[in-house]
Amino acid sequence: MSELDYSPFMREAIALARKGRWKTWPNPMVGAVLVRDGQVVARGWHRAAGQDHAEVACLKDAAAKGIDASQCTLVVTLEPCCHQGKTPPCTNAVRQAGIKKIVVGLSDPNPEACGGACQLREAGLEVIEGVCAEACRDLVADFLVWQQKQRPYVILKMAATLDGRIATRRGESQWISSEESRQEVQQLRAGIGRCGGAVLVGGGTFRADNPRLTVRPISEDEPDCPQPLACVLTSRLPQPDADFYLLKERPAQTIFLASPAAAASTTAKALRDMGVRVLSLGPALRGGPDLTHMLHTLWEELHCPYLLCEGGGHLALSLLESGVVDEFRLHMAPMILGDEDAHPLFSGRAPLSLDEALRMRVIGTHISGGDIHIELRPLQLAEGK
Amino acid sequence: MSELDYSPFMREAIALARKGRWKTWPNPMVGAVLVRDGQVVARGWHRAAGQDHAEVACLKDAAAKGIDASQCTLVVTLEPCCHQGKTPPCTNAVRQAGIKKIVVGLSDPNPEACGGACQLREAGLEVIEGVCAEACRDLVADFLVWQQKQRPYVILKMAATLDGRIATRRGESQWISSEESRQEVQQLRAGIGRCGGAVLVGGGTFRADNPRLTVRPISEDEPDCPQPLACVLTSRLPQPDADFYLLKERPAQTIFLASPAAAASTTAKALRDMGVRVLSLGPALRGGPDLTHMLHTLWEELHCPYLLCEGGGHLALSLLESGVVDEFRLHMAPMILGDEDAHPLFSGRAPLSLDEALRMRVIGTHISGGDIHIELRPLQLAEGK
Repeated sequence: MSELDYSPFMREAIALARKGRWKTWPNPMVGAVLVRDGQVVARGWHRAAGQDHAEVACLKDAAAKGIDASQCTLVVTLEPCCHQGKTPPCTNAVRQAGIKKIVVGLSDPNPEACGGACQLREAGLEVIEGVCAEACRDLVADFLVWQQKQRPYVILKMAATLDGRIATRRGESQWISSEESRQEVQQLRAGIGRCGGAVLVGGGTFRADNPRLTVRPISEDEPDCPQPLACVLTSRLPQPDADFYLLKERPAQTIFLASPAAAASTTAKALRDMGVRVLSLGPALRGGPDLTHMLHTLWEELHCPYLLCEGGGHLALSLLESGVVDEFRLHMAPMILGDEDAHPLFSGRAPLSLDEALRMRVIGTHISGGDIHIELRPLQLAEGK
Repeated sequence: MSELDYSPFMREAIALARKGRWKTWPNPMVGAVLVRDGQVVARGWHRAAGQDHAEVACLKDAAAKGIDASQCTLVVTLEPCCHQGKTPPCTNAVRQAGIKKIVVGLSDPNPEACGGACQLREAGLEVIEGVCAEACRDLVADFLVWQQKQRPYVILKMAATLDGRIATRRGESQWISSEESRQEVQQLRAGIGRCGGAVLVGGGTFRADNPRLTVRPISEDEPDCPQPLACVLTSRLPQPDADFYLLKERPAQTIFLASPAAAASTTAKALRDMGVRVLSLGPALRGGPDLTHMLHTLWEELHCPYLLCEGGGHLALSLLESGVVDEFRLHMAPMILGDEDAHPLFSGRAPLSLDEALRMRVIGTHISGGDIHIELRPLQLAEGK
């Protein structure tokens, strides 16, 4: 008999895992299904940090349905852990359930957790690894950044016209994207706020748009949804009495990321006196701020798991060129300005050849409110690199 | 009993209709299915001009399978015709098959064919109209242009980076799009060639790229696939001995669209002597060629049903501003140039407000060879306008 194709089951497990988005930090999103006779008979996912891991949730779902898990194949997006954390090792639960075959998407890259598949093989289970490995890796891209780079997972979000313009020549940008697109950005901010993440803008956007960077209550169930932190990357610190929403309405949630000189200035002290945080970046590199240092500062000082950059184009390109954008969400409205002097998505580079272009990888597209949403990720490194 | 939702059946009929693409001219693509007990039991589509209409093909499929069509609902993308053309009226076939209920996507906008639904109602059939009407209208957008505007259906195809650039500042554009994307353009050219259509470029692209605008043989089944006509919009006619592939390799398939003065020049005469056609456009409007006149010339002189414009940006924007682009296919490569001086998708307009943007409607997106393919159409007019 030829081997069953487990990809459809893995894709269902991935979809289940995503239900945990914004709730599992500092854990990864994980999903699992039990398969018998080519049918999914039980489902589980990691709902939130401290709660059951996906494998255990799936086995409990089977038990609640009176299904004998020992007759099933367990399909799980991430290699089961074999270490004691807030919950017992999942390998124990898998063995105790009498599972004989397990299909794993991504081998656990966490050195502490590693070894689950090996342990299960030694216990006599059949283990298949690497099914939908790229999609399973993308699923836990945030977790991999936390583990391997000790910095926030960076999401860049931009809205542009079909011809790559973010505002007219006069600076009009409200609204290029549709109401539905803007609602999705609100949900993104809400998710980031829920786990203590931050929204980042450059000084130009801060001064030109005077943004609040808040979440409007999305549902009546959650009238007081947690707000994301508001980060402004600028060394031109505002006076404490300047007319900015961030200073007037949410100083305790506002962080300026400034040069060492600006962070030591009297303006910085005055801002701190009103509850605003002013953090010092490392010395500037090649004329721009050291973005890697900025991210480590946010990680260490603020324990910030996600950073959502909402522009402008100058900051966005700096992040892209620094190689720290983990996810790029581009909302394109089906409109054309056709104006060379309209504000472009990105500027400041001067590649002569296409070989010098920055390249990414398209994860998916969908249409929302008439706009095209494109999700991109960094090019995947070859396995093992 | 609540009314069955016929949308899934209509979508299947639309998919069947598309199998006839490039073969039905001067007829529209039409698809039909027979539904019994919520299941599709027979299928048909208009395969080519002169062959069975979709309804008849579907009824023949049912007969071949021994299915009693009188017990089925007929779902068809376009209102059945009630006139004698190359084939007998479809309304007769529907009545003779004993069909009692018919679901129609789009009412036939052809004044000659109109009245099929009315005739069937008078004959006692239940007729439901307007299921998936927009998608059914998009399916026959080419036919509607032929019928209502007497000009070729215009497809604009462009390839750009994610930030809307079609070449580096030095003009390098090979290759922004992926191998798979370029293969799809070949298939588009092949379809257009098959029904006597043309590819259009502006004079700048003609002189800079020296294109052949041909189709490479796609399959071994069709080594000599018909080539599309090659149209060049320019009043700067080349000398007959100039080193252009179009003049050297396919003069009889090359057409220059030029000003009245250029079309009357001695160069034009010399080009005509070698088999090249030089057509005269109407007097220039607002500094540019009269594109509507150009399209009517292609329709009347060359009986050209499709015109594929492959650039450059200046011609493309002129077509868009003239409102004659019926379909815009944008292939976006996931690369970023980030250079304000790289060649933009479009230039020449200067809108101050977003209200002045040209707007289109997204039909769909898909990923091909890592590129994002976006299909856009003009904004739909309200029903009946």
